[in-house]
Amino acid sequence: MNESPGRPVPPLPPGVDPAWLPAFALRPVGSRRVRVVGTGPLVDTVRGEVVAAVREHGGHLVDDGPVDLDLVCAPETGGGPEAFTAARAAATTTVRAAEGAGLLYGFHHVVRLGEAAFTGTWSTTAAPRQAIRMLDHWDNVDVHPVMGQVERGYAGGSLFYADGGVRADLGRVAAYARLLGSIGINRVCLNNVNVHRTEARLLTDLLPDVARLADVFRPYGVRAHLSVSFAAPITVGGLATADPLDPEVREWWARTTAAVHAAIPDFGGYVVKADSEGQPGPFAYGRDHADGANLLARALKPFGGTVFWRAFVYNHRQDWRDRSTDRARAAHDHFSPLDRRFDDNVVLQVKHGPLDFQTREPLSPVIAAMPSTRLAVEVQVTQEYTGQQKHVCHLVPHWREVLSFRPWGEEGGTVADTAAGVVAVANVGDSPVWTGHPLAQANLFGFGRLAWDDRLSAEDVLDEWIGLTFEDRTVRDALHQVMGDSWRTYERYTAPLGVGFMVRPGDHYGPDVDGYEYSPWGTYHFADRDGVGVDRTRATGTGFTGQFPRPWSDVYESPDTCPDELLLFFHHVPYGHVLRSGSTVVQHVYDTHFAGRDEVHRMALIWATLRGRIPADTFERVTELLREQLRCATEWRDQVNTYFWRKSGVPDARGRTLY
Amino acid sequence: MNESPGRPVPPLPPGVDPAWLPAFALRPVGSRRVRVVGTGPLVDTVRGEVVAAVREHGGHLVDDGPVDLDLVCAPETGGGPEAFTAARAAATTTVRAAEGAGLLYGFHHVVRLGEAAFTGTWSTTAAPRQAIRMLDHWDNVDVHPVMGQVERGYAGGSLFYADGGVRADLGRVAAYARLLGSIGINRVCLNNVNVHRTEARLLTDLLPDVARLADVFRPYGVRAHLSVSFAAPITVGGLATADPLDPEVREWWARTTAAVHAAIPDFGGYVVKADSEGQPGPFAYGRDHADGANLLARALKPFGGTVFWRAFVYNHRQDWRDRSTDRARAAHDHFSPLDRRFDDNVVLQVKHGPLDFQTREPLSPVIAAMPSTRLAVEVQVTQEYTGQQKHVCHLVPHWREVLSFRPWGEEGGTVADTAAGVVAVANVGDSPVWTGHPLAQANLFGFGRLAWDDRLSAEDVLDEWIGLTFEDRTVRDALHQVMGDSWRTYERYTAPLGVGFMVRPGDHYGPDVDGYEYSPWGTYHFADRDGVGVDRTRATGTGFTGQFPRPWSDVYESPDTCPDELLLFFHHVPYGHVLRSGSTVVQHVYDTHFAGRDEVHRMALIWATLRGRIPADTFERVTELLREQLRCATEWRDQVNTYFWRKSGVPDARGRTLY
Repeated sequence: MNESPGRPVPPLPPGVDPAWLPAFALRPVGSRRVRVVGTGPLVDTVRGEVVAAVREHGGHLVDDGPVDLDLVCAPETGGGPEAFTAARAAATTTVRAAEGAGLLYGFHHVVRLGEAAFTGTWSTTAAPRQAIRMLDHWDNVDVHPVMGQVERGYAGGSLFYADGGVRADLGRVAAYARLLGSIGINRVCLNNVNVHRTEARLLTDLLPDVARLADVFRPYGVRAHLSVSFAAPITVGGLATADPLDPEVREWWARTTAAVHAAIPDFGGYVVKADSEGQPGPFAYGRDHADGANLLARALKPFGGTVFWRAFVYNHRQDWRDRSTDRARAAHDHFSPLDRRFDDNVVLQVKHGPLDFQTREPLSPVIAAMPSTRLAVEVQVTQEYTGQQKHVCHLVPHWREVLSFRPWGEEGGTVADTAAGVVAVANVGDSPVWTGHPLAQANLFGFGRLAWDDRLSAEDVLDEWIGLTFEDRTVRDALHQVMGDSWRTYERYTAPLGVGFMVRPGDHYGPDVDGYEYSPWGTYHFADRDGVGVDRTRATGTGFTGQFPRPWSDVYESPDTCPDELLLFFHHVPYGHVLRSGSTVVQHVYDTHFAGRDEVHRMALIWATLRGRIPADTFERVTELLREQLRCATEWRDQVNTYFWRKSGVPDARGRTLY
Repeated sequence: MNESPGRPVPPLPPGVDPAWLPAFALRPVGSRRVRVVGTGPLVDTVRGEVVAAVREHGGHLVDDGPVDLDLVCAPETGGGPEAFTAARAAATTTVRAAEGAGLLYGFHHVVRLGEAAFTGTWSTTAAPRQAIRMLDHWDNVDVHPVMGQVERGYAGGSLFYADGGVRADLGRVAAYARLLGSIGINRVCLNNVNVHRTEARLLTDLLPDVARLADVFRPYGVRAHLSVSFAAPITVGGLATADPLDPEVREWWARTTAAVHAAIPDFGGYVVKADSEGQPGPFAYGRDHADGANLLARALKPFGGTVFWRAFVYNHRQDWRDRSTDRARAAHDHFSPLDRRFDDNVVLQVKHGPLDFQTREPLSPVIAAMPSTRLAVEVQVTQEYTGQQKHVCHLVPHWREVLSFRPWGEEGGTVADTAAGVVAVANVGDSPVWTGHPLAQANLFGFGRLAWDDRLSAEDVLDEWIGLTFEDRTVRDALHQVMGDSWRTYERYTAPLGVGFMVRPGDHYGPDVDGYEYSPWGTYHFADRDGVGVDRTRATGTGFTGQFPRPWSDVYESPDTCPDELLLFFHHVPYGHVLRSGSTVVQHVYDTHFAGRDEVHRMALIWATLRGRIPADTFERVTELLREQLRCATEWRDQVNTYFWRKSGVPDARGRTLY
């Protein structure tokens, strides 16, 4: 038979971490006799993985059979384009899939199983729960004077851009694409949703370089997208207007999009942040967001492209004195009336909560309000508000809660059942460990795994990551203790009871309880000497609770039924209010802040026991970061506790130090 | 006779405001018969002024006499180098001075008098109260990524630097030098006290360009100075140390300084910010600030140069939990033990207050604690904490209070009596009106006038400036109403009762009551639900009151005798504490904030009456800035009032709106 030699596995530049695909993770496959059947770019990718693995570990890629084969990856007819069947019988493990993508995912399923893939008899049929599994990169081509190269990036510069353009050497991007393919990510957006001058040119004269990037992602099943500015017809096209109903504008987008597809045949589509935080949008022309989104959708339609239109639209020039305006209401107010108005290749991209990726928010009610619109749920893998990759904050349990939330109560479906896809803001950069904090790799890995199947347990996903990443099998329990509950730990030492936004303005790192209290951003807690929290009830507040379907509209409406962790999101209560937990609000603040900080101390002690069982550079780096996390958690504890002590005058029931 | 044609008055680039030397201000001189006798560069400057004025206004520069002369400027023997005698008798006005500087100052005295200089019979003998009348420019050569080109500059880019070096065309600098000479400024420091990499090279390879700047200032009686980094022997000189007692270091400074003086024979000396906010200093070598200052003093001594050594040294990595550290104490703690240790060509440059140019502070006790040390009092003309040249804030009354303060009580001398000089941080830039806000020119003018004679009344200085600047004589009352009390108005709507630092961190514009409360900067107010203020007493606080001589150490020690406007600087008191004014603290907060904001509204209304009587561009610009001032004052009012209402729970006695 005449089979291709396979696509070479992209080599890692010196010093770059292999993340969850280190050599040892490929040993179970690489030490065996493997056959890869089929043709096509993704099959070639699988074949290349096998070639590299057997070369490293002494196995064999064979092109005949059927006897003496440990693993066969081969096409089958039927099944979805990304689905696969994996099974073991008669001492042979098989992966079968209708298309190359499914084969690649099945292959990595076997890699994750490790030796277990070659033991016993078993069978799995798998298909992704979400067809759209996307990462948005907030990368700028030019280094932004305030935001840096990667907006809200905590892992160094951009993987894609350097020196004012797309990198000449995309070797590292290929290694990144391989990592994404291995966890089932199938779309990336290559540039920041805030589109600046140079980035606007990705659509035009920089397009050949975007095509080079798309070429690198394609063999791993990942389609490229671009963020575009709604004003591009003016700023790039030289037209006098960007009005979505203007024929010239429509023609410009059609022409421009055709050129993009000519360069990138499988171009995924556009991501658009419009009429938000200063970005241009259809409001300037008296049009609505359906007009805006459909304009781009129709340009993309002939080529199979999709518009990802962000629902993150709110008034960021609010007056803090005006308690009737509620930023949490904004997305629902803007978008729910537009259900049925969007074309079928529009995906409305909705942040999971109504504000902005806080550690704890209720679900965005938009997600339950637009049955006729394709919705993607957006989460934030980059830790903007969750410790900025200086803190261990394993977010998979958070996303697991979001995706399994049932907006219509126990009888209804979950968010994941409802969604047309999931999108995450990426957390990678040119850091040698990809994510700045070595343990933040688990968030990227876990996002991919949950996007594929939200029913996986967060615990299992974490253990899967640990097992793939660290060769020493004895580290699992300790690492699990350090990471497993770290999101809730972070929640404990930061803003309490769902109130959010007690962060330092601008950089969003570290505490500043009143930092946003008098700002135009709509991010208030209204703490006074008597109580704290935002009244978002229908009865006496902003009415935000009414944006939810039952039962949540009722559950959230009453402080007696509202979950403790969201109490201050929905209610303004006295400091002496007794929580469902039995504690008062102010004592809860003290207790959780002391506990959260002490948990970080405990995490550091457990981590210290791993010396010698973790690669030394990783060990030292995380040790140093835990020191910063402890310092910062102490600062959070003392500032938040002191703030509420000075305001409430209520001493700590346990007599601990307040300042 | 053979007299030089005079130094041409530097022409103003198109669109640049003439400030207080518009054509009409020279009319009384320029319409007369004038003789200028003598030689030398400053006499040439005077002659050039006359040449330009008579050309403009139809008078005559004559070189004979003595009959029919309206004005004679001529040398005399005796009198200080900057002193002059001006007089009018027998229908001739005379200016006589021993040296050119005195002649220049006398000439501008006549200009300021205007027609009154040519009326009646009168005689004045004048000499500056302060020998050192200096402006520090915080200009960077390179645009700093955070601080911009002029640190804390609110008037555009640098007058001196552009495109990474000294400007090729120094025409505007010459016009600036002329303005400074006209108000008696005799020293400028050309670069920021925070010395970055490029600026360090002003001492070495950029020195020829510094010499060009010095050449421009020299004919106006202004000597050039440079800010230097204490680490220059390492960073510029390539030595291994900057230890002030190291012979190689001494030799390097001697050699370097000799080269500076070779290029600039009248070089004024160095300005040094050492061991402060991250700048290097002698502490790194276990040496003290006298060792550091004397090192440079000895290098400058052979050439008549002076070291201006800043006393702004404090711990900016403080822990807000630690109430025993008091930033206000720092300068006195560091420097008072060093009295008698400084060489006689060291001037210790002391900020007027113990913190940092707040709207209201007590006097820095250093000023009364070092009788054997030459001290210069530093004030801030650039409005870092006083409205950033967006707000009308006429600071001359403030400085007048500082300079006339009697640290030893009524029987002792004033600050001005004690000081060896006054220094101000400049407020100019390449703004077409020099100072961003057109009315901020009055602060630059007033600083020069008070530096010359601190006994002038702030009211008179303001009227002098108005009269020189605006040709329409009818504007004076209205402008005086807008500007005269504006410093106290600013105080009313910002931080109350001397507590200070309720500003937005970083940019220092606009309110943020808790902005510095949990910071490392040592700038706390300790507000809780019961009270506010910093206990700096000897009895129960940080002991800062003890750094003052009597009577102030006792006056400040008791809340019963402490002046209201400094109460919260020295005492932590309950909100119900009754002020000497009869109001409670919290009601005073409310009342002053409502009043201050309303005064801004009144200022804007009065300004509006000047339409048509002020040049249109100035009128419009100030109108627009007053709108911003009103917006910002409203924000200050509402945030500060709301903060204290939420904390204290005390309603406004007059029932006005709190949020």
